[in-house]
Amino acid sequence: MKKSLLALALLGAFAGVAQAQSSVQIYGTLDAGLIKRTDQSVAMGKRANNTLGFKGTEELGSGLKALFQLEIRYEPDTGTIEQGAGGVTRPLFQGQSRVGLQGDFGMVRLGRGLTAFQESSAAFDPWHGVPTPAGFQTDLIVAGGYTSDPLGSPGNSTNRFSNALFYNSPVFSGFQVNTTVATKETSNTTAIIGRGTSAAPQYRVGGEASANPFSISTTYKNGPVAAMLAYERNAIETKLWSIAGSMNVVPDLKLMASYSRQDRGHTELLNEETKAWVLGANYTMGASKILAGYGQKRPDGQVKTKQFSLGYEYSLSKRTYVYVDASRKKANASINHFAVGVNHSF
Amino acid sequence: MKKSLLALALLGAFAGVAQAQSSVQIYGTLDAGLIKRTDQSVAMGKRANNTLGFKGTEELGSGLKALFQLEIRYEPDTGTIEQGAGGVTRPLFQGQSRVGLQGDFGMVRLGRGLTAFQESSAAFDPWHGVPTPAGFQTDLIVAGGYTSDPLGSPGNSTNRFSNALFYNSPVFSGFQVNTTVATKETSNTTAIIGRGTSAAPQYRVGGEASANPFSISTTYKNGPVAAMLAYERNAIETKLWSIAGSMNVVPDLKLMASYSRQDRGHTELLNEETKAWVLGANYTMGASKILAGYGQKRPDGQVKTKQFSLGYEYSLSKRTYVYVDASRKKANASINHFAVGVNHSF
Amino acid sequence: MKKSLLALALLGAFAGVAQAQSSVQIYGTLDAGLIKRTDQSVAMGKRANNTLGFKGTEELGSGLKALFQLEIRYEPDTGTIEQGAGGVTRPLFQGQSRVGLQGDFGMVRLGRGLTAFQESSAAFDPWHGVPTPAGFQTDLIVAGGYTSDPLGSPGNSTNRFSNALFYNSPVFSGFQVNTTVATKETSNTTAIIGRGTSAAPQYRVGGEASANPFSISTTYKNGPVAAMLAYERNAIETKLWSIAGSMNVVPDLKLMASYSRQDRGHTELLNEETKAWVLGANYTMGASKILAGYGQKRPDGQVKTKQFSLGYEYSLSKRTYVYVDASRKKANASINHFAVGVNHSF
Repeated sequence: MKKSLLALALLGAFAGVAQAQSSVQIYGTLDAGLIKRTDQSVAMGKRANNTLGFKGTEELGSGLKALFQLEIRYEPDTGTIEQGAGGVTRPLFQGQSRVGLQGDFGMVRLGRGLTAFQESSAAFDPWHGVPTPAGFQTDLIVAGGYTSDPLGSPGNSTNRFSNALFYNSPVFSGFQVNTTVATKETSNTTAIIGRGTSAAPQYRVGGEASANPFSISTTYKNGPVAAMLAYERNAIETKLWSIAGSMNVVPDLKLMASYSRQDRGHTELLNEETKAWVLGANYTMGASKILAGYGQKRPDGQVKTKQFSLGYEYSLSKRTYVYVDASRKKANASINHFAVGVNHSF
Repeated sequence: MKKSLLALALLGAFAGVAQAQSSVQIYGTLDAGLIKRTDQSVAMGKRANNTLGFKGTEELGSGLKALFQLEIRYEPDTGTIEQGAGGVTRPLFQGQSRVGLQGDFGMVRLGRGLTAFQESSAAFDPWHGVPTPAGFQTDLIVAGGYTSDPLGSPGNSTNRFSNALFYNSPVFSGFQVNTTVATKETSNTTAIIGRGTSAAPQYRVGGEASANPFSISTTYKNGPVAAMLAYERNAIETKLWSIAGSMNVVPDLKLMASYSRQDRGHTELLNEETKAWVLGANYTMGASKILAGYGQKRPDGQVKTKQFSLGYEYSLSKRTYVYVDASRKKANASINHFAVGVNHSF
Repeated sequence: MKKSLLALALLGAFAGVAQAQSSVQIYGTLDAGLIKRTDQSVAMGKRANNTLGFKGTEELGSGLKALFQLEIRYEPDTGTIEQGAGGVTRPLFQGQSRVGLQGDFGMVRLGRGLTAFQESSAAFDPWHGVPTPAGFQTDLIVAGGYTSDPLGSPGNSTNRFSNALFYNSPVFSGFQVNTTVATKETSNTTAIIGRGTSAAPQYRVGGEASANPFSISTTYKNGPVAAMLAYERNAIETKLWSIAGSMNVVPDLKLMASYSRQDRGHTELLNEETKAWVLGANYTMGASKILAGYGQKRPDGQVKTKQFSLGYEYSLSKRTYVYVDASRKKANASINHFAVGVNHSF
């Protein structure tokens, strides 16, 4: 709408932005394969998230840059926008929608995206953060059932903040600090009873967060060694802290370990803690990569979960690989998961 | 589907359009900031509309061009498609979806977009048409409560026609005529009782418009002077007319004024008129711009509304600016609005 | 998520895909016009499908290519995502969402798209497969009421498989074989009683397909002659077979004929068959093209349907044409359809 009356004249009405032209970059991922799970028929599905993104930067001079990023998420097997639990459609730009500035001070962005903890911890998952049941990111690395967005719309992703400010520091001697702080706005349509009653739930429908959600991660990277220390508190004051490290013992072999602890003491009276740990390895041989992981999740007063996974990726090129995954997850019963598919980045 | 059987063979099935390649231009805006309103918590929100658009033209020879434009609207704080009143999701291409031809005769387009009046009047709003409560476009310039699309789906925007033909004349000695005419199709799911009864509403659910909605604006631009005269009638025959003018008294100072009148006589028995006027100024100093405006809205038989707003924009570059807005709107009670944020075009 | 911890550091968090850059191609169609149907007001609508697509390929060496294609469908008259029966919104990438590999062996893709039969048969419709009521593709060429996706979500398109594997063979001496096979997954929310009872429907809500849906078409193309033989079986085991041929008797005149037969014997006790045939012609004179077609649909034990259509396309350029269609469809009553509009590819 930044246009003069002249711009309303013939040409301008179509011209839109009359300013210096930018170059928007389109990128994304399409990942599809076949999945067989214990007690279910063979189904088509994904191993990684499927994205179609738009991003760009603008040089502002003096080393300052403006930048934006919008990332659609979708389900390639059915063509729909990404769906959460119960088939509920997620936001169009589920991946992220952020605008910000970058300079010597680091990077500041506003909008919606992965929290500092959720983004940093992916480097210590042997499945590099993809949401397949063979990976450890979505369950064990968050110490089982933790969600970054408990007061979001039903079906929303559980590892993002909406209405948030994101700050990434510059890297000092291998150290970086990443923080995310959100406003108290919520879009919840389901009450959380918590320590209240169904008549007076602790968090009512449409109510506000009881504290500003925030997330902080400090990362360290020096040659073959990397480490992370992270802390996050969500809108209902569940707390999660996590420590993780990795080491390339030889260049082709990366070993990784993480330990996470979730504290639901603000909403639960009993059994408020869950602890989890994961050990993993990636071994690269030319175009081949072997992934292996083992982990346990131990919720207070409940049966513990053990997960063992083995995977193989073969790169057809820099942007395309095929994969095979096999995993077993055992709590009271065992569930096996087997998947084969193709992942293409563009 | 314009492809031969050969095209169905291997290559063609993937090739899609086998015709002369076009160059689609991607453009958009990402605007996000923090907002504080009287009686509400600090929230993240937008000042301007957020768009992600696709457009292109094709030279047809003899000065004739074919053109199209598709414009996604979204909410960057949550990543969703733009939402209207009550959180109802708007059409994906809420911005516009139009195809047409342009030549010596002017420009003709079919589809959905801003009406002639709604598009022309933005040039006389000191907030250049952005939908922030600090601006005057969405309430005072339309004489309070007028909507261009009363029979559209709930949550739809109030300044567009669907199913419409858009014509913009060439510019003759500074004059241009813009017209928009829509078919009588509606998508309303809520009856409008109007002069009927709840048993027999004047406009029933799924019923037709009682007349073809249309909008016409005549604009004039000559050096420092600009003016507009506009008239619009919507699907339930509410009428709006508006007159506006602006003048750059010195190159850096633009003064503007507008007067609008809404007549709901077709659906109301009493108090069918609302009048409104707005005075505004923009003062530019290098990268800085000061925005100021004052206006009143006077609905028949109801308390009048007064609005005063002050804003500041600082351009970091041609495509990025930061802004601060402060405004007070007073009818029975006063509501203050304060916002700070960043706007990036790409 | 394929990024090292270093990538989580400042730059990487914004960089996303750190791999070899691809070039995504954007393409699409915008088609809008005015439609008059017997007993209805003049409405704005489309003749062809409206698409906004993203596609790309990656050379893998040795003649192997990776490829993807994502295709948004929308309604330009209202700006919404494409809507099916009853105004139900279809998937965002209704057109297709597929990833695959292409080489000497042919092309293999995973995801969602037109079935082999539905894609091949468009070449024998005088309206080249566009979904206008003047064309024959959506009703007569599928022998009336056949749907490729009977257990899909309500409003879904009727000519696609979700969760499918697509294979197109290379062309051998003019012959090509195309096959589509889907998993048994369904998203149906409406039971199909079929040969069951309302208490125990043959296909219950959320139930599985009783067999893997598949589609196969063999096509032949040699100079002026083309032919197709196709067979398809959907998730409720309705069977459709179709034979079609076309010939350019002179280069400018293409004659075409098709015969299809639908067998609903798996879900119906009586009148399970529908037969249909279509004769068509396309005559090209410079920028002009005349389209003509006549066909009949004969459902067992029901009145037969006769359709006659006449159309004219005038190309303003390689990517833009205007059109006029007139058609009459007669079963018990006659319905006339008249349309005029513009189609622009980009």
